[in-house]
Amino acid sequence: MQMIRYEHPLSEKVRIYLRLEYLIRQMTHASQLTDPWQHQIFFRALFDMLEILDQIQLKSELAKDLEKQRGKLKQWLNIDGVDQNALLELLDKLDLAHHQLLTATRLGQELREDRFLSSIKQRLSIPGGSCSFDLPTLHHWLHLPLAHKQSNMQNWLNHISELSVALHLWLKLIRESGQFRPQVARGGFFQHDAEAANMLRIDICSSHGVYPMISGHRSRFAVRFLPFEEGTGIAELLEFKLAIC
Amino acid sequence: MQMIRYEHPLSEKVRIYLRLEYLIRQMTHASQLTDPWQHQIFFRALFDMLEILDQIQLKSELAKDLEKQRGKLKQWLNIDGVDQNALLELLDKLDLAHHQLLTATRLGQELREDRFLSSIKQRLSIPGGSCSFDLPTLHHWLHLPLAHKQSNMQNWLNHISELSVALHLWLKLIRESGQFRPQVARGGFFQHDAEAANMLRIDICSSHGVYPMISGHRSRFAVRFLPFEEGTGIAELLEFKLAIC
Repeated sequence: MQMIRYEHPLSEKVRIYLRLEYLIRQMTHASQLTDPWQHQIFFRALFDMLEILDQIQLKSELAKDLEKQRGKLKQWLNIDGVDQNALLELLDKLDLAHHQLLTATRLGQELREDRFLSSIKQRLSIPGGSCSFDLPTLHHWLHLPLAHKQSNMQNWLNHISELSVALHLWLKLIRESGQFRPQVARGGFFQHDAEAANMLRIDICSSHGVYPMISGHRSRFAVRFLPFEEGTGIAELLEFKLAIC
Repeated sequence: MQMIRYEHPLSEKVRIYLRLEYLIRQMTHASQLTDPWQHQIFFRALFDMLEILDQIQLKSELAKDLEKQRGKLKQWLNIDGVDQNALLELLDKLDLAHHQLLTATRLGQELREDRFLSSIKQRLSIPGGSCSFDLPTLHHWLHLPLAHKQSNMQNWLNHISELSVALHLWLKLIRESGQFRPQVARGGFFQHDAEAANMLRIDICSSHGVYPMISGHRSRFAVRFLPFEEGTGIAELLEFKLAIC
């Protein structure tokens, strides 16, 4: 009985945050692997991330969001029953992440200017375009000692550490703002008010054989569960857990 | 002292063959892995392969090439000193691969029509577009038991087995048609006649810190070795091995 967790953003901004988090997680994971093909995951995630960063002004937006969370948390200062040490520590973290994000150079700029990465980027979008004859520099790099490659990848990751830390912190606070509660979908359908939330989180048992299609925005949303295997039915009452964050 | 092998196609057709081989090798490798992110490699390679197959009429071209190799090999029948059993076995293999390739349905057709694969394909080209909210079906699939996923991947690979076998056989024969010989590049440069060859294969020691840029066609080619690290020099005499296949 495995639970599957689905997360769904309720705004375009949170959609971008989640995508970036997902790409950074891929890069971090791939940077530690020893499999000879894992570099594909690393480089693709890196270039996808740069493409997203090119499209939007993320820095000021994310800084504003951190500041908003900080404002909310400050209301708990000097309130009885609230762990003041933990709160102060968290406020410090937010302050530091906010400061480092704002003082960082343009996000990903060093990665854009990296000669080796640029030479790979152009070809990677061609189907099968990372063969040794397409990218001899990459082919050479792949034969460098593992420690050398891992150190390169760690170095590239370090260039986005401010983004990574800020994103991680904000998403952590948002996720912790909602609690999972048992819910029931009737005929595979469920709808509810979202109360200006940022994202939905759904836990559902894989044995139901369904996946959720979610539509909605910050005030109201609907979940429709669909069968994974074509032609199979859906239970009239479907139990799942939902957190509105 | 690690040798790095570079292969370079001398025609557009061989370029496509090598790219397809590279993609199929990625898929095969990824289909056996247990790492949770490796599916990315599998699906991307699969869709890249389908894109290439959409662009060109590969089947008849590859069948013709197999036939040509068969004709060449037949000249060795009843020649003294040639292992006739091995030769007959190879001719049979070529015959079978040729027959199976020609009688196969349109290459990759079952994969194009697969509902699950189609649902993934559209989103995978969006930067970061394979999050759980983008592709809930993929997210569900990823949580299926490993054996189930591996069996699915094996099944998808089986749909291109005729292509895979034919491609593998032709490239093997071509590769075996040339022998590695020691060569020297002066000032990082080497040029030679290609004698209507299909591809070049270069072995060079990684300690030289260089990679080859190759230009040329079926009658003549030039290799220029460039330093991997910007600003480093190139040895006046650079030893490498070359096979013209």
